[in-house]
Amino acid sequence: MCVLGLGLIGGSVLRAATAAGREAFGYNRSVEGARAARMDGFAATTDLTETLRWAADHEALIVLAVPMPAVSALLGYIKDIAAGCPLTDVISVKGAVLREVRAAGLLDRYVGGHPMAGTAHSGWSAGDARLFVGAPWVVGVDDHVDAGVWAQVMNLALDCHAVVVPAKSDEHDAAAASISHLPHLLAEALAATAGEVPLAFALAAGSFRDGTRVAGTAPDLVRAMCEANADQLLPALDHALGLLNQARQSLAERGSVADLVEAGHAARARYDSFSRPQIVTIAIGEENWRDELAAAGRSGGVIRSALPGPGNRR
Amino acid sequence: MCVLGLGLIGGSVLRAATAAGREAFGYNRSVEGARAARMDGFAATTDLTETLRWAADHEALIVLAVPMPAVSALLGYIKDIAAGCPLTDVISVKGAVLREVRAAGLLDRYVGGHPMAGTAHSGWSAGDARLFVGAPWVVGVDDHVDAGVWAQVMNLALDCHAVVVPAKSDEHDAAAASISHLPHLLAEALAATAGEVPLAFALAAGSFRDGTRVAGTAPDLVRAMCEANADQLLPALDHALGLLNQARQSLAERGSVADLVEAGHAARARYDSFSRPQIVTIAIGEENWRDELAAAGRSGGVIRSALPGPGNRR
Repeated sequence: MCVLGLGLIGGSVLRAATAAGREAFGYNRSVEGARAARMDGFAATTDLTETLRWAADHEALIVLAVPMPAVSALLGYIKDIAAGCPLTDVISVKGAVLREVRAAGLLDRYVGGHPMAGTAHSGWSAGDARLFVGAPWVVGVDDHVDAGVWAQVMNLALDCHAVVVPAKSDEHDAAAASISHLPHLLAEALAATAGEVPLAFALAAGSFRDGTRVAGTAPDLVRAMCEANADQLLPALDHALGLLNQARQSLAERGSVADLVEAGHAARARYDSFSRPQIVTIAIGEENWRDELAAAGRSGGVIRSALPGPGNRR
Repeated sequence: MCVLGLGLIGGSVLRAATAAGREAFGYNRSVEGARAARMDGFAATTDLTETLRWAADHEALIVLAVPMPAVSALLGYIKDIAAGCPLTDVISVKGAVLREVRAAGLLDRYVGGHPMAGTAHSGWSAGDARLFVGAPWVVGVDDHVDAGVWAQVMNLALDCHAVVVPAKSDEHDAAAASISHLPHLLAEALAATAGEVPLAFALAAGSFRDGTRVAGTAPDLVRAMCEANADQLLPALDHALGLLNQARQSLAERGSVADLVEAGHAARARYDSFSRPQIVTIAIGEENWRDELAAAGRSGGVIRSALPGPGNRR
């Protein structure tokens, strides 16, 4: 397999895949990143053409691990040199990548992915072979996906010791908007609001620190993920604004925030008791396998060991 | 000294003050709470009259540690039995308590307090002698406060190993709205919004968990603190709503959340580098001491060891 882009996520995939015994090559645009990876004992180059020729010769799985704005250009190279290779990605929005892949004519060998792991740091040096241990790794089950490629992507995620959550791209993006992108915007608004109040920082304690932790993330990264998922973030933001506006009105008119507080507490309690059953009864490639996996993922199901399917017959 | 109310905060004050070598008595309305305190070796009773007579005989510092709705009735007893005692409180809003104290005619011996510490639990059994170690303990410097009482309340906070932040009541309440009450409302809105999205809980990770942690707090407690501070919470909520509405418009029209993200990140960075200089040059009772302490607290200053003043001459 080869990993295109050796930042935090791509660099961690290269490490984890190598640790799992895979033959894995890395490409990085910058000389510094590729050299750092080689210094750490990994196969890495700045030669994209060479990397993709090797991938084509070996029908290797290609993992796109670059920021969204770089996807389109890379897909052009893949189309030219390694169009037959199975293709996945580790980018935090799925609909936008899917559109680019479709436009490049590479849809039939593509299965999207998104490991839900990260830190506030970036670059090769921030990577960690154990970054994905126990983390949900979304693997796309959109209508077009090929069972053989899907099995390969599932196995990569499991080799990285993640748990696989099967999901449709649009459902992934809607969920990511509400549990990742919206929290970032609320944290920014909280930090900026408190920043205007004399004495606020002097008294700030746990609820402020927790509520603004992700406001410490680099603005470029926050913008990139929020803006690339605007279609799904807008309705999530509108929903939260609706709840807050109702609470504002209720507090001003009746001195009560009961509705919001009770709804929020109930939702958080449901989250705390949310169960994660293991998906074991679905075989990749059987009739309706994509929709069955999507339904299982939606209700909390995760894949902890490889399902039967192409190359994985039990 | 005596502590009226032996819940999480009052019970912790009784423990911490006793540990510091003070003679401290506790009153609790419920038999269970008082009995539990006695079983743990503390002096505690359900007899309010007896407690207040003892306080009056000893000119003991009285610490109000009951929920806001119980304050008015207790102040009536204090006025009747122990009007000459120095009086403080540990309630999370200061303007509302100040109004009740003024109405009861007890203003001249009252200095408000608020230790910024707590857990999601409540009751005597949740208390801890070390709950206040290193925590900011706001001590009110409103225009009316008496230097002698102020020094007593400062010394209580220092005996509990807190750091004292001097503040005006209205500034405290505005700050608490932005760093404590607003974060609760945002967390509730985030939890409730994600709770409506299929797949959201299946993918939820760090930013959702952090952003909704305080939504796990009992709804009654959240309502009590938000609703008692409505006057200050409404403008904080409006400010946050303004920022979020602008971001929503900018995202919809120009695909950008730059303004909000940059403002939030900058504010969080200011918080991370906020310094806490020790206040050492102000003597309690000297000319303009209240305003000087308020200004020092506003700019991050804390009292870590007793300032000179009545009973504390250096």
